[in-house]
Amino acid sequence: MTLDSLRLYQQRLEQVLQQQLNKKSLTDPRLHQAMAYSLLLGGKRMRPFLVYSCGQMLGASLTDLDGPAAAIEALHTYSLIHDDLPAMDNDDLRRGKATCHKAFDEATAILAGDALQSFAFELISSHDYQQVQPQRIVAMIQQLALHAGYSGMCGGQAIDLAHTNQRMSVDALEQMHQLKTGALIECSVRFAYLASPVDNIAHLDALVRYSRAIGLAFQVQDDILDIEGDTVVLGKTAGSDQKANKATYPALLGLDQAKQKAQLLVEEALAALRELPYATDELVALARYVIARQF
Amino acid sequence: MTLDSLRLYQQRLEQVLQQQLNKKSLTDPRLHQAMAYSLLLGGKRMRPFLVYSCGQMLGASLTDLDGPAAAIEALHTYSLIHDDLPAMDNDDLRRGKATCHKAFDEATAILAGDALQSFAFELISSHDYQQVQPQRIVAMIQQLALHAGYSGMCGGQAIDLAHTNQRMSVDALEQMHQLKTGALIECSVRFAYLASPVDNIAHLDALVRYSRAIGLAFQVQDDILDIEGDTVVLGKTAGSDQKANKATYPALLGLDQAKQKAQLLVEEALAALRELPYATDELVALARYVIARQF
Repeated sequence: MTLDSLRLYQQRLEQVLQQQLNKKSLTDPRLHQAMAYSLLLGGKRMRPFLVYSCGQMLGASLTDLDGPAAAIEALHTYSLIHDDLPAMDNDDLRRGKATCHKAFDEATAILAGDALQSFAFELISSHDYQQVQPQRIVAMIQQLALHAGYSGMCGGQAIDLAHTNQRMSVDALEQMHQLKTGALIECSVRFAYLASPVDNIAHLDALVRYSRAIGLAFQVQDDILDIEGDTVVLGKTAGSDQKANKATYPALLGLDQAKQKAQLLVEEALAALRELPYATDELVALARYVIARQF
Repeated sequence: MTLDSLRLYQQRLEQVLQQQLNKKSLTDPRLHQAMAYSLLLGGKRMRPFLVYSCGQMLGASLTDLDGPAAAIEALHTYSLIHDDLPAMDNDDLRRGKATCHKAFDEATAILAGDALQSFAFELISSHDYQQVQPQRIVAMIQQLALHAGYSGMCGGQAIDLAHTNQRMSVDALEQMHQLKTGALIECSVRFAYLASPVDNIAHLDALVRYSRAIGLAFQVQDDILDIEGDTVVLGKTAGSDQKANKATYPALLGLDQAKQKAQLLVEEALAALRELPYATDELVALARYVIARQF
């Protein structure tokens, strides 16, 4: 991934999020502050990058992609806030700063997460699209609801919680991650496709396979970084998986095999891209970055 | 409100909710169970009643109303689960049964609420509409997102929490309720309008005024029942507002004036209905029921 394009998309996204937040009247300043705090805490912005990069590759306009890109990040941010709560993973540190319930309080963090989920659906449904037909807007919303909810991200988090301190097979671990992290990454390429003029199921299918492979590779790398990474560089507490006795790829496969698995997944992702008649260089770079990253 | 029509709509809604829940695979049985537990706990189903009754009055088909009616109830249910959490109102009893975090656990309750919010957007966006155009489906989703989020229900709950143990003016109390409870009640008539063939802003405007008046009347009556009501009949702990030192209409106005205010609001609602060229008898009955109810 060229760092320039990553930075450009990041800046664009920050601007969109800031503008949309500024539009809200300060009915409750503390809740507004908590939402903004978590939303603008930085982060890799990988999901919006996927929306922008993949969408542009397919011929969507940047302005049409602003809504879906902001929506997927708002939804992701809400999930981080709730995952960090005392009753869930009980984390104090996120992206190098205090988690939402630490910086504010638990009730505010629950509400900020709740409001950010609604905000995601507002961003995607209220965006001023130039070239996207209403049917495809409805389809984007369907995808977001499905991938965010019980059959997606929330389901994955529930499986994760249910298996703390329990043995898990590699298959079960994979299903959990496919839901917990993979669902929103897949949703990002579906957004890109639906916001574009392309109408070709085979192309969508290749993109979905790409997204699933990098989503899982991302998770395997996360597990590896929990062992090999540094708390300061990571911006979250290293070693917390081991401390919580969580099932991870290194724990199940060993560190070397986990690294090999990540490599294989990236090759699978690249193979899917080779089926496509588009300029896939940014997506190729993203796939490589996913396992090269140190945070 | 004729009890027959109320019961018919209730039964229809239960069926729709049950069918939609049954479609979900049992990825995580505990989360599924928690969602079903809260969603099927009973309750007045006032918001779905409004969607069905008002929608039918405007000429929408019952099957087209199933999606919006189920969506508004799923959203309302998620908000109850999260409001009851220890970090929020810390309630043990809801609709005469254990609250979600008591029946399950806190993490599951947070996730069940989160998943039910996504489910609401799934229900409204994935419904198989016969006569509703995609533009109006998108508009329904916009309304749901706006009324559920920071500028609506979540904002109201934040204001509520911020004012525990604090004096509040009647105006501030009214704004809080308008957001916390009123937003979803208003959203229900907006759903009914958008799912119908009617395209008349003056009619929508009268319906919105009706909904705001009964929404507020509902809340005033809630405050009155917290004083005069019985825990067993209410299905929730009577006297909990006073215990939590919450601002209420009886506390600010006195019990008699609070009752008078509720009465005036109902008359305001009925006046709005008189502007409409439809058979408003069910909506008239609902307005009267709102302050006659004992639970």
